[in-house]
Amino acid sequence: MEVENRYIAVRHHVDGPPSEDDFEVKSAPVHWTAESGEVLVRNMYVSIDPGQLNRMKRHSASQQSVGAIVPGERIVAHGVGEVLASACLEYEVDASSGFPLSYHVGVLGMSGTTAYGGFFEVCQPQSGEKVFVSAASGSVGSLVGQFAKLAGCYVVDLLKGKLGFDDAFNYKEELDLKSALNKYFPDGIDIYFENVGGEMLEAALANMNTYGRVAVCGAIAEYTDPGRRAAPGLMDVVYKRIALRGFLSYDFMTQFHEYNAIIRNWIREGRIQVIEDVSNGLESVPSAFAALFRGENVGKKLVKLP
Amino acid sequence: MEVENRYIAVRHHVDGPPSEDDFEVKSAPVHWTAESGEVLVRNMYVSIDPGQLNRMKRHSASQQSVGAIVPGERIVAHGVGEVLASACLEYEVDASSGFPLSYHVGVLGMSGTTAYGGFFEVCQPQSGEKVFVSAASGSVGSLVGQFAKLAGCYVVDLLKGKLGFDDAFNYKEELDLKSALNKYFPDGIDIYFENVGGEMLEAALANMNTYGRVAVCGAIAEYTDPGRRAAPGLMDVVYKRIALRGFLSYDFMTQFHEYNAIIRNWIREGRIQVIEDVSNGLESVPSAFAALFRGENVGKKLVKLP
Repeated sequence: MEVENRYIAVRHHVDGPPSEDDFEVKSAPVHWTAESGEVLVRNMYVSIDPGQLNRMKRHSASQQSVGAIVPGERIVAHGVGEVLASACLEYEVDASSGFPLSYHVGVLGMSGTTAYGGFFEVCQPQSGEKVFVSAASGSVGSLVGQFAKLAGCYVVDLLKGKLGFDDAFNYKEELDLKSALNKYFPDGIDIYFENVGGEMLEAALANMNTYGRVAVCGAIAEYTDPGRRAAPGLMDVVYKRIALRGFLSYDFMTQFHEYNAIIRNWIREGRIQVIEDVSNGLESVPSAFAALFRGENVGKKLVKLP
Repeated sequence: MEVENRYIAVRHHVDGPPSEDDFEVKSAPVHWTAESGEVLVRNMYVSIDPGQLNRMKRHSASQQSVGAIVPGERIVAHGVGEVLASACLEYEVDASSGFPLSYHVGVLGMSGTTAYGGFFEVCQPQSGEKVFVSAASGSVGSLVGQFAKLAGCYVVDLLKGKLGFDDAFNYKEELDLKSALNKYFPDGIDIYFENVGGEMLEAALANMNTYGRVAVCGAIAEYTDPGRRAAPGLMDVVYKRIALRGFLSYDFMTQFHEYNAIIRNWIREGRIQVIEDVSNGLESVPSAFAALFRGENVGKKLVKLP
């Protein structure tokens, strides 16, 4: 069997904010035979993730752990697909989840695992603690905020439209982030779920309580502008005994099924809202990706392939 | 009983590097009676600690946890003294340690506890791991490096004269700290015991391995120049899953006797060297303190009171 495979590639390394022009749609034939030992899959949903930008740079720490994206070549991404033909009979088809298939690239995929592991394992929340989530409009942040509410925490978020959080603000409207956080957290921050970096991390650390924890999930402000690094107060880190820990979703692979079962129950019980932001068609991947860095998405960004 | 008590005070808040002129010797009478419920102590050794500088500043995160030093008033510091008179009969005298009394303000006091807890508890070292200690000439760093050798680690240190470490360098002679660390740690750093801050932290993070740990004990470069903040690469923190944790010696008070017993054995067995840098007389406190920030001490800095 031979099919035409269309894919997105970067034309060149992308070191600043991405734009649609950095990408191109390419095409190549794919051959499949019963003897190939391979699976032929038609992609239905593709996950659009900000961390992919780091794989597109000339140099980045990400490339040691998750690999580089080579200009002109296929970009590896998470997705959901339909098996058209398979030479791997040991794999069984599981089509019984009862959830929309798109959930498997978001809340039931790596976004949910990242949010669950990052919040419950890295942050070790206690009921009543004060939680600040940056980039809560994103796929991970929107879940972390909701998980924190379920854990009995007080949650303030960077999402303007609140998802049942205690408060929220738009950081683009705040002239002084340090004072803004002090206003929203008069009793200080116990847990900061970090997606943004830069001056947001500085402001959060200055407002943290003793034994505060920072889960460093990403630093989207620093992805597009490497000169915009956070210069956190180390004296806060020492005297307030703050712990910062970076993590990747891959760290929680062994707990994937355990976390997923809990998240599935929460969705069924209506305890968390799943927010998706869907674009249509392979050609929309570049614009969907570029829009992430302008903060235009609300919820999990994904592309539906018709 | 009435005695004249001489003490050191700061004349004013100290926000930059300290100099001898910032201090004054003062004097006030102390009254002791059997009914006072108090203990009258003659100080014999006083600990000289860089962290005290943060208590002298106009504002500092340290003052929430360890209190401010008020200009003109007595400075609280750790010391060893002889009880001249006591109205607290429930306290027994323990003069049987068999070690020099000065050890109790250093290796058998808070310096030893900080080094032991900071290294073994915060860093969780494994044999064979690569350890970098900054400010190893200091009271804590000189112990951490020796503890790391006992734990079977490979140790590089900022101390020029090696204490049995695998390598050492003088950071003042290195133009590019990031390249210098790469040269000393071709296989990367697993544990960084942070005393310095600023560009040293940046260089260490850039050279760390996956799952690296940073114990943030102090940031002496930032104590004297608040504008000299570290701007670490958050992408290193995320993708290499680095954990940074601030701590204070006070966090290990419940383990004080346990740690002390181990350290005493190591000293008796000759497995660690105790390095002291002693000045004489109360009047030498200001110069001893100011010299800490010029990196002039080697080992635990203390003042002997005749």
